[in-house]
Amino acid sequence: MTQHADVLAIARDLLRCPSVTPAEGGSLAYVAEVLSRAGFTVERPVFSEPGYADVQNLYARMGSGGPHLVFAGHTDVVPPGDETQWTHPAFGGDVADGVLYGRGAVDMKGAVACALAATLDHLAANGGRPKGTLSFLLTGDEEGVAVNGTVKLLKWAAERGERFDHCILGEPTNPDALGDMIKIGRRGSQNGTLVVTGTPGHVAYPHLADNPVRHVVRMIAALLAEPLDAGTDHFDPSNLEFTSIDVGNKTVNVIPAEARARFNIRFNDLHTQATLRDLIKTRAAAAAQGARWRFDWEPSNADAFLTAPGPFVALVGDAITSVTGRKAKLSTSGGTSDARFIKNYCPVVEFGLVNASMHGIDERVPVADLVALTAVYREIFARYFG
Amino acid sequence: MTQHADVLAIARDLLRCPSVTPAEGGSLAYVAEVLSRAGFTVERPVFSEPGYADVQNLYARMGSGGPHLVFAGHTDVVPPGDETQWTHPAFGGDVADGVLYGRGAVDMKGAVACALAATLDHLAANGGRPKGTLSFLLTGDEEGVAVNGTVKLLKWAAERGERFDHCILGEPTNPDALGDMIKIGRRGSQNGTLVVTGTPGHVAYPHLADNPVRHVVRMIAALLAEPLDAGTDHFDPSNLEFTSIDVGNKTVNVIPAEARARFNIRFNDLHTQATLRDLIKTRAAAAAQGARWRFDWEPSNADAFLTAPGPFVALVGDAITSVTGRKAKLSTSGGTSDARFIKNYCPVVEFGLVNASMHGIDERVPVADLVALTAVYREIFARYFG
Repeated sequence: MTQHADVLAIARDLLRCPSVTPAEGGSLAYVAEVLSRAGFTVERPVFSEPGYADVQNLYARMGSGGPHLVFAGHTDVVPPGDETQWTHPAFGGDVADGVLYGRGAVDMKGAVACALAATLDHLAANGGRPKGTLSFLLTGDEEGVAVNGTVKLLKWAAERGERFDHCILGEPTNPDALGDMIKIGRRGSQNGTLVVTGTPGHVAYPHLADNPVRHVVRMIAALLAEPLDAGTDHFDPSNLEFTSIDVGNKTVNVIPAEARARFNIRFNDLHTQATLRDLIKTRAAAAAQGARWRFDWEPSNADAFLTAPGPFVALVGDAITSVTGRKAKLSTSGGTSDARFIKNYCPVVEFGLVNASMHGIDERVPVADLVALTAVYREIFARYFG
Repeated sequence: MTQHADVLAIARDLLRCPSVTPAEGGSLAYVAEVLSRAGFTVERPVFSEPGYADVQNLYARMGSGGPHLVFAGHTDVVPPGDETQWTHPAFGGDVADGVLYGRGAVDMKGAVACALAATLDHLAANGGRPKGTLSFLLTGDEEGVAVNGTVKLLKWAAERGERFDHCILGEPTNPDALGDMIKIGRRGSQNGTLVVTGTPGHVAYPHLADNPVRHVVRMIAALLAEPLDAGTDHFDPSNLEFTSIDVGNKTVNVIPAEARARFNIRFNDLHTQATLRDLIKTRAAAAAQGARWRFDWEPSNADAFLTAPGPFVALVGDAITSVTGRKAKLSTSGGTSDARFIKNYCPVVEFGLVNASMHGIDERVPVADLVALTAVYREIFARYFG
């Protein structure tokens, strides 16, 4: 029987690094050590931006020629919250009843550990080198503002001549069980504020005033009344959520001057940010009934993108099935990820651990899932370079 | 030709008293002096309430037996605002081009001056005594919280055995010209807050959350969609205004837990506060679609009331027509006044100056209007005691 790398030991070492974003906490140094020892060329670029913390990143590469598969991810984590509520220390790497506890266990130091272990196994089984190029692209700025992270690291790599053929991003993609879901794209995101201006006055004389609350309610109701679309083959219907309405009028007998309604739209590949804004403006105008209104659009994440199903997606899916017995759903649901940056450089597919405990108290992963995900990544490497 | 009392001199003296609510500023002392000299018995009760300023009041009475007509009003005024914007001092009593300037010129020291002058004239023409009882009921707490004012003064007078047959309240009732409008009632007022509770969550997973903004918008739209009523013979339709919606969610990617919408209802005599609350709750429930909601009702002014047209209203209207040539509209429009307290003791009718400049910069009244309103009050006294 083949001796595999000890993924649990790697994961525990990583969980013990207090790498709350944007702190590195020893996590990337640890990865660099593992990969250097395996023969990778490791670079540790630090990126800066006025007004933001400097952030450490890692790019490691082994092999030459194509195909070039890059494993992407991050070793920063969100804060642990109230640590007194954790049944095991957030940065202790404790294992109890076959479960590993710690901040980042699933998002996503656990998956980084699996990719490292799978790499060591793959090299051991293939004479120490991939048949092509295998690289790691890891950041410490994914959970924060994402200014000095993957977006700059990709640009930095491209400027050095790095060309990726495909990417696996190790975000936790499975809702319930390992093998449930591959993410093959992400919806776009657009934030905005609907600002309606009225004419203030006394509530006893509403005919002398123009109440912006009436207008904003009518316009919001109209915008929510009609779906943005019915979804596409690989995307759910686009969704508009109003996240806040704020008037701030403290005086009970006064009609206010302005009402502001903030919203977020998660949208599919039927729209771009530009066409979506036009659609929203058109619908708002139809419901305005003479109100004075405008939209303040906020800088937003990105348009939707899709890594169309094809040989690479099928390879990942088959690898998952061979290990877990599950046929992973191809999904574009949920929030955003660094895949929104990576897709500009190569096709990217996301597959990692089960996301149920991510960002919560007692974030944790069954050791069996670490072993299985390592096997999935190993299987992907074998098929990709095979 | 009869020599009339100098209403302008009285009005100027009153305007020079800096009686910004709840300060007396010498105003009630001045009235007491005028009425005492004319033979009135004058009382100056001071009312207190924990947490509020003590407030001076005045009750003056002359004559005996019925009928008993009481003139009600206030000598406190709202603050002048930015005095540098006034073309004449706010408390100077300046007259320019036949116009008297000053805070309270129309709301309502001007009308108090007219009532005093008319009283002096009436007594002079009738042997120094009314054929019945004439009294003044004046407060210094109308523009503020109205806690230590008319509401307590009426109770105080009732406990001393005072019984009023009719009341004239001298609030500025005319929109454009003296004689336009008599107020024969007031709408009720009810403040409340609609509180909708949802389930917070991430905007990318709206199916796992329950957005209270969606619910509150739908419920507000439903409440605004259908009129509360169509009005009555003497009242406009009741009106609901939402004065604020406040969620206060600063995080763009989070669905909030709660939304609060504040509103005010001005309602007519088809409703009481109790039946109105039931109506609003029933309509809200019909639009709730499973949302968790409640109403927080605020202590409010009062129910609507009407002084039904009859001999007293006709007497006032005829007196106005005889002086101004105008047929005053019988109205219940606008905000509230101390009439909401007085109507519990006797029929009350409101008639005073033109309200266009009340509470504004350069509050002012044409001297001709002071002379005419004095004549109207004199005519009312003559007909009432005639």
